Amino acid sequence: MLVVMQHGASPAEVDRVVKTIEEMGYQARPMPGAQRTAVGLVGNDGRVDASRIEALPGVAQVIHVTQPYKQVSREWRPENTVVTIAPGVSFGGVEIPIVAGPCSVESEQQILTAARAVRAAGATALRGGAFKPRSSPYAFQGLGRQGLELLALARRETGLAIVTEAMDEEGAQLVAEHADCIQIGARNMQNYSLLRAVGRMRKPVLLKRGLAATISDLLLSAEYILAEGNEQVILCERGVRSFDPAARNMFDLTAVPIVHKLSHLPIIADPSHGTGLRDKVTPMARAAVAAGADGIIVEVHPTPDRALSDGGQSLYPEQFARLVAELRAIAGAIGRSIAKTPGTAPLEVR
Amino acid sequence: MLVVMQHGASPAEVDRVVKTIEEMGYQARPMPGAQRTAVGLVGNDGRVDASRIEALPGVAQVIHVTQPYKQVSREWRPENTVVTIAPGVSFGGVEIPIVAGPCSVESEQQILTAARAVRAAGATALRGGAFKPRSSPYAFQGLGRQGLELLALARRETGLAIVTEAMDEEGAQLVAEHADCIQIGARNMQNYSLLRAVGRMRKPVLLKRGLAATISDLLLSAEYILAEGNEQVILCERGVRSFDPAARNMFDLTAVPIVHKLSHLPIIADPSHGTGLRDKVTPMARAAVAAGADGIIVEVHPTPDRALSDGGQSLYPEQFARLVAELRAIAGAIGRSIAKTPGTAPLEVR
Amino acid sequence: MLVVMQHGASPAEVDRVVKTIEEMGYQARPMPGAQRTAVGLVGNDGRVDASRIEALPGVAQVIHVTQPYKQVSREWRPENTVVTIAPGVSFGGVEIPIVAGPCSVESEQQILTAARAVRAAGATALRGGAFKPRSSPYAFQGLGRQGLELLALARRETGLAIVTEAMDEEGAQLVAEHADCIQIGARNMQNYSLLRAVGRMRKPVLLKRGLAATISDLLLSAEYILAEGNEQVILCERGVRSFDPAARNMFDLTAVPIVHKLSHLPIIADPSHGTGLRDKVTPMARAAVAAGADGIIVEVHPTPDRALSDGGQSLYPEQFARLVAELRAIAGAIGRSIAKTPGTAPLEVR
Amino acid sequence: MLVVMQHGASPAEVDRVVKTIEEMGYQARPMPGAQRTAVGLVGNDGRVDASRIEALPGVAQVIHVTQPYKQVSREWRPENTVVTIAPGVSFGGVEIPIVAGPCSVESEQQILTAARAVRAAGATALRGGAFKPRSSPYAFQGLGRQGLELLALARRETGLAIVTEAMDEEGAQLVAEHADCIQIGARNMQNYSLLRAVGRMRKPVLLKRGLAATISDLLLSAEYILAEGNEQVILCERGVRSFDPAARNMFDLTAVPIVHKLSHLPIIADPSHGTGLRDKVTPMARAAVAAGADGIIVEVHPTPDRALSDGGQSLYPEQFARLVAELRAIAGAIGRSIAKTPGTAPLEVR
Repeated sequence: MLVVMQHGASPAEVDRVVKTIEEMGYQARPMPGAQRTAVGLVGNDGRVDASRIEALPGVAQVIHVTQPYKQVSREWRPENTVVTIAPGVSFGGVEIPIVAGPCSVESEQQILTAARAVRAAGATALRGGAFKPRSSPYAFQGLGRQGLELLALARRETGLAIVTEAMDEEGAQLVAEHADCIQIGARNMQNYSLLRAVGRMRKPVLLKRGLAATISDLLLSAEYILAEGNEQVILCERGVRSFDPAARNMFDLTAVPIVHKLSHLPIIADPSHGTGLRDKVTPMARAAVAAGADGIIVEVHPTPDRALSDGGQSLYPEQFARLVAELRAIAGAIGRSIAKTPGTAPLEVR
Repeated sequence: MLVVMQHGASPAEVDRVVKTIEEMGYQARPMPGAQRTAVGLVGNDGRVDASRIEALPGVAQVIHVTQPYKQVSREWRPENTVVTIAPGVSFGGVEIPIVAGPCSVESEQQILTAARAVRAAGATALRGGAFKPRSSPYAFQGLGRQGLELLALARRETGLAIVTEAMDEEGAQLVAEHADCIQIGARNMQNYSLLRAVGRMRKPVLLKRGLAATISDLLLSAEYILAEGNEQVILCERGVRSFDPAARNMFDLTAVPIVHKLSHLPIIADPSHGTGLRDKVTPMARAAVAAGADGIIVEVHPTPDRALSDGGQSLYPEQFARLVAELRAIAGAIGRSIAKTPGTAPLEVR
Repeated sequence: MLVVMQHGASPAEVDRVVKTIEEMGYQARPMPGAQRTAVGLVGNDGRVDASRIEALPGVAQVIHVTQPYKQVSREWRPENTVVTIAPGVSFGGVEIPIVAGPCSVESEQQILTAARAVRAAGATALRGGAFKPRSSPYAFQGLGRQGLELLALARRETGLAIVTEAMDEEGAQLVAEHADCIQIGARNMQNYSLLRAVGRMRKPVLLKRGLAATISDLLLSAEYILAEGNEQVILCERGVRSFDPAARNMFDLTAVPIVHKLSHLPIIADPSHGTGLRDKVTPMARAAVAAGADGIIVEVHPTPDRALSDGGQSLYPEQFARLVAELRAIAGAIGRSIAKTPGTAPLEVR
Repeated sequence: MLVVMQHGASPAEVDRVVKTIEEMGYQARPMPGAQRTAVGLVGNDGRVDASRIEALPGVAQVIHVTQPYKQVSREWRPENTVVTIAPGVSFGGVEIPIVAGPCSVESEQQILTAARAVRAAGATALRGGAFKPRSSPYAFQGLGRQGLELLALARRETGLAIVTEAMDEEGAQLVAEHADCIQIGARNMQNYSLLRAVGRMRKPVLLKRGLAATISDLLLSAEYILAEGNEQVILCERGVRSFDPAARNMFDLTAVPIVHKLSHLPIIADPSHGTGLRDKVTPMARAAVAAGADGIIVEVHPTPDRALSDGGQSLYPEQFARLVAELRAIAGAIGRSIAKTPGTAPLEVR
């Protein structure tokens, strides 16, 4: 941490900063400059609360040199973490799994049709919401526990791994029982009680980036989960809020190489929420693989114009099949491959 | 709702939109234009899921004419809602209460000193976090239940009403027992499980705007609480994320008159989080009152340079006292007044 | 400037940074830390191009300690600059001038009616566009030179000082001949050729903040003007782009106290463009004065529903008159006053 | 255009809206709804100024159904516009040209070395700034006319087409004489005087998206150029301002498929400014091609750590060569190809 003093700060003010740093148990290293003095804090263990120093007279600015997260950082662990949510379904290696399915689980027929369609087209895992966070209390909120049971049925029928969202601790317990990966949605990215709860579980977590979360915020939220002992965290870029109404969100694909540099955790991309527009999903899914994403999560619905939610951004099954073919070619172009659909043989074994 | 067709959409495509609207149980009203046709959906009860129509061929855009919220809107209830959190402490009337106190409850001595200081300076209610949502899992997370007990003690000592944050349902129950108003923080503004939980309680709620929440999002989150039967909701502008690092947040004071037009709920302003910088708190608190805010919530700490959190944005007690004097003058200039500090007499009665 | 090395950067890499800094003519001061080494650059004169150092192997980040602007900074000149655009019309002192008038000059009758109305209500200066930057090439682009002549006529008739926009060097010359202050609009805030051109003139400049300009960007643009020798610069907050469609722009009033701390230049506020909504102009103009703005610029039109541009955000003359009365009360509450309307007597003398 | 009336607007208020629309020369079509009445304006030719109607009593909102631009829209011209800046160098077809080179022209040796290196690696055109818009007046501002002459020399030596920026009308004339394509930078995207000036020239224009420009704003700025008669416009996504300091800008690649749907003009992508970080340029250039960009513009410097500007985001020549190879593979995967480097034979002919 670097404490920059105001131009013209008095020696007594610099001295008080030095003393305060030492009182807090760290070393202070003053560094006089041409225009102003700075004081380095050496030994920062990530627990320093800068406010105390910011409040001292003569201080112009406190600059954080050390990142505030630890266990999620690549400095903590240089090699990639590979998160395996089901046998053969791993994120963070050379293979890129594709998670596909409808926004919400609506009925047995709908989810089974969707599951078979995305499996036939090349998906590795099935997505589908049983608990739906909706901006309006009057919108369809999901089938709840029954939805989870339908997802479990779809897994038995197709062998696809299941990824689905939880909105609170109780829901997370239920999701952990029925599915392979607990999704934490964008709106709950800083719901620390929920992050701690899934951190205490031994189930992989898919953590989506919040609507206004910086990449540092996303990593800090993942840190909450790792700090509780659960290292099986997959990050997900899904678009952030922007000033441009041309798309529902602004899909920040640069997050992929940035996270790869800062963290050992895998990061996947969601071009459906990332753009909010069906005809943008295909080009942006291609772009995500080209940018190095460790997986793709995409909304596919057997009949989008009858969907109870998000129909407008869901792909038709045949669009999705064409997309998977393109993704294979692009993955090949950068030395990776699309993960295989789970076979029926390993299915019996589970 | 207005469905705008693409330029050159075929009559069959327009017809399918009309039929789909009718199937959904609403009336369709086609409106041919010079360049393109639009189809009005009449009878929207707020439950229409636009995605289903957006997905139809030939549709260019779906425009929402009706606001998605209901009970929070001024059209639902034209007169102001006045939320009374304790005898004599009301938000939404002519009087403007001031809520002040430290970021976190740290110790008995700290919170009592702070409570006495802010009471002496003119505050009506005391703020102070017992449960602290912090970006880093390694930062001070609050004293929890013990913090709530200290707040209750401060109430007994000073007569100040207590406003404090809850981060989950269990915490909300505890806050409801010890305090006068449950605060839902910015990070949990779209934690719908928590919103529903406090909606089922009979305790006033202070709902802070999320970091990237539009005003419509804020009102929809309030709608979750009202939809469960709790109408005692106070909204709070506390700054949003922006591109400018010059301040921690961008304090969007225009939210005050906008909310006043759209909703009957009171809205207060938090210049401490709204700016994140102590020397900006005073001018922006003045601006908030001038803009018509129904209350001010501000961080004051007896010794900011020793605070365990947010010391850099906390006012010194004497700065706060000067601020209250200025706020009185500004409130008077626009026909309002600063609410009085609770007396000791009504205190005995409680 | 502080060069932060990557965790695990080699001594040779640190050494290369040191050498590069010395080659560039500055002093290097290495500062080993617990987790990583930093190297301070001492003697930064504001001309250091960080890219050269950022590109070196082993460098994690370059942190700018010194602000990139100079002459506009309060460190360069501690006392407020007072910019006088006409006798008795000064920005940056205790008095707060009000600039009012229509978005565009439309006709002799319109501008004279408007000028008389705003003068009667208490304005000090008249605004009105002769050259209008419009997003669409098909929208009304202003009367050009004829508009300037009408403004000059309005000055002769009312004694009001004239503020009007220029969009290019040629236009700036014309504005300088006819008006008292050259406005540079938000869209041209980083049109450096234009900034240099008005920097070479000896006429006060009103520089509006760009739609996505940080306060540092705004000050750097002002620096372009001062660097050419023109110190008569008034800054203007007029709202920035945001994610919330609830208002046309997000009015960032905290810019006022931030600029007051960083710079000696006066800063005024434009609640008309800042909000884009007539019924928000009054509360936000009050807020601007309460926040410490050195002036207010506001759109007033004799008949807003017949305006050729921006009618929806223009005040009616009687609304403006009530607003001025409120502003007087608020200015008084914080020890300032609204500047007086120019009298007819000094008018003869000009 | 749709005028939405307030809930409870009186018949007289609706009538006044109808009359005003008719006075303006359009047809009005009232549409009563369950909750509120709307009035459609039929016959909008793109010149309607909504403010006049917004200002009427009883009006809640004005919704624009028709896009404000015309000649740039795909509805105006369904087939792609192909912009040819030099023989064999075309944007908007199946082939994807790569424009590469240093941020600034610094010297004869530097630009010739860079030109030869990017040509050898597969570039089709050379970029390099002679006029540099810099945030600080004290930063290197480019070699000006001499820089243009060095670019012309590089063209003679290598056969590469030249793309370089102009900051004002005079500079645009010079660029038109020496180069093949006039670049308008992000900061000047709404400098309408400059847009009109290049609209009157008969030289291709590369128009970069402004820092806070919506895609609609970008298209409107292009409309200014087309409206003056110059249809040779190439758009460029180069990142926008965001709240996340993790990258210099937020690279909004979804702009590529959005522009392709709305407009017939080609759009290219600039991953150097789009990310601002050298190690993000390669993955994001790949992503841009996968998203469907019609060209790539990328900074390459022979010795980035000695660059006078933007060294930190410039690729080393060998990195660029590897990138081009990857781009060829990705382009192939989606049925496109990277444009060929101009041969020496056609060079003699020019």
